[in-house]
Amino acid sequence: MHIEVIPVEGLPLIHQGDDLAEMICRLVAFEDGDILCLASSVYSKAHGHTRLLDEIVPSVDAERIALKTHEDPRFVQAVLDDTTDVILEEPFILSETVTGHVGVRAGLDHSNVEDGMVVRLPPDPMNAAAGLRDALGAVSGKDVRVIITDTCGRSFRRGQAGVAIGWSGMTAIRDFRGDHDLFGHTLEITEEAVVDEVAGFSNFVMGESNNGIPAVVFRNCPQWAGHDDLHFRRDEDIIREALSKN
Amino acid sequence: MHIEVIPVEGLPLIHQGDDLAEMICRLVAFEDGDILCLASSVYSKAHGHTRLLDEIVPSVDAERIALKTHEDPRFVQAVLDDTTDVILEEPFILSETVTGHVGVRAGLDHSNVEDGMVVRLPPDPMNAAAGLRDALGAVSGKDVRVIITDTCGRSFRRGQAGVAIGWSGMTAIRDFRGDHDLFGHTLEITEEAVVDEVAGFSNFVMGESNNGIPAVVFRNCPQWAGHDDLHFRRDEDIIREALSKN
Repeated sequence: MHIEVIPVEGLPLIHQGDDLAEMICRLVAFEDGDILCLASSVYSKAHGHTRLLDEIVPSVDAERIALKTHEDPRFVQAVLDDTTDVILEEPFILSETVTGHVGVRAGLDHSNVEDGMVVRLPPDPMNAAAGLRDALGAVSGKDVRVIITDTCGRSFRRGQAGVAIGWSGMTAIRDFRGDHDLFGHTLEITEEAVVDEVAGFSNFVMGESNNGIPAVVFRNCPQWAGHDDLHFRRDEDIIREALSKN
Repeated sequence: MHIEVIPVEGLPLIHQGDDLAEMICRLVAFEDGDILCLASSVYSKAHGHTRLLDEIVPSVDAERIALKTHEDPRFVQAVLDDTTDVILEEPFILSETVTGHVGVRAGLDHSNVEDGMVVRLPPDPMNAAAGLRDALGAVSGKDVRVIITDTCGRSFRRGQAGVAIGWSGMTAIRDFRGDHDLFGHTLEITEEAVVDEVAGFSNFVMGESNNGIPAVVFRNCPQWAGHDDLHFRRDEDIIREALSKN
């Protein structure tokens, strides 16, 4: 069966209070089982997860780091406010957020927002995805699954790629443990980060820049079984351990 | 425009000497601009990029590392033979290959091959992609673009995801540098690893395990402009530098 990937075209600029489910359902005739990928920045703007630089007073720590990263100390303070663990301070702040997600500048974004405004990641992205899923179901009458996406850099490889930060109606990981390959071997690769693979392709379809396509629908995707344990625990993360010794 | 993602179903087990372009074109009616993603393991089997464990004599180094990784020293030797730089020896070998790609066990794979056989990554994956592209064009009469895929682990996030190791007819990176966002700001995220985002979703469609779908076609993908500099140089790779100090 062919999978269809449908950019949601025609969404206006999103402002706080906008009803995303209503607006998206006006543009998409959903079918049961569809996956909607939505850029986290758009979710956050609709739900007011933004801050004004003018209202932020930087701490001594923020001032100190800002000297190294050449950023506005108020922006650095906003990053620290959303950070539970700083992994790197420079050349950019790499930090863990409350959900276990590790990202550059705690996922805070200056792009595509009004001057002086910073867009945070949704503070509870799993609930964000579940809430949007419920709303899409209520408006469309269909069972629509949801992934909230962000973009991240990677180790060893240049360039950003889309990742999932919240999801609902699916598991993050497809778990092959115990499965056998075509020759009956137990599989070596046993856990696949399916939500990130879907989010990554949605990011390609969204484009960055001024395309203005923050939502993408996936139709006819196969189902999978697995679990939601997408983030390494600190004590099992070799790379994080190495960075912490630096 | 909807993007279609089409699993290539019905490919038999691949053996050395098989004509992949001929076999795939029998199953797909290609259109100009299609992207074919092909699992590197299948490419390598068709082209004989495999080794028999019985024919490998492990070095002292391979014996030493195998004690730590609990692997067959002959398999470790095969990994070292395809490695230009060992980044980690344990808990698994993480190494760079001749192309600059960094992967676990240099991308060598035990899965889905006959007992005692190890499948290497294609030693020149860019030429592999270009050659397959030419062959698909000759058989189908269409301009088909190609990505050769593998799966990799990630930092901070559990689970494997598909990545591109060779590509032809496109650039690896979509380059937004100098672009402006919807509000006229210069974009902060300027380079997107598009080939990895496409390869990742193809890996989701392929599945692992015994699905036996090693090829996926993407139709109606937008074009992009950028460059092929997908791998960080050692001196610009913060995480690699940290690992090397461990």
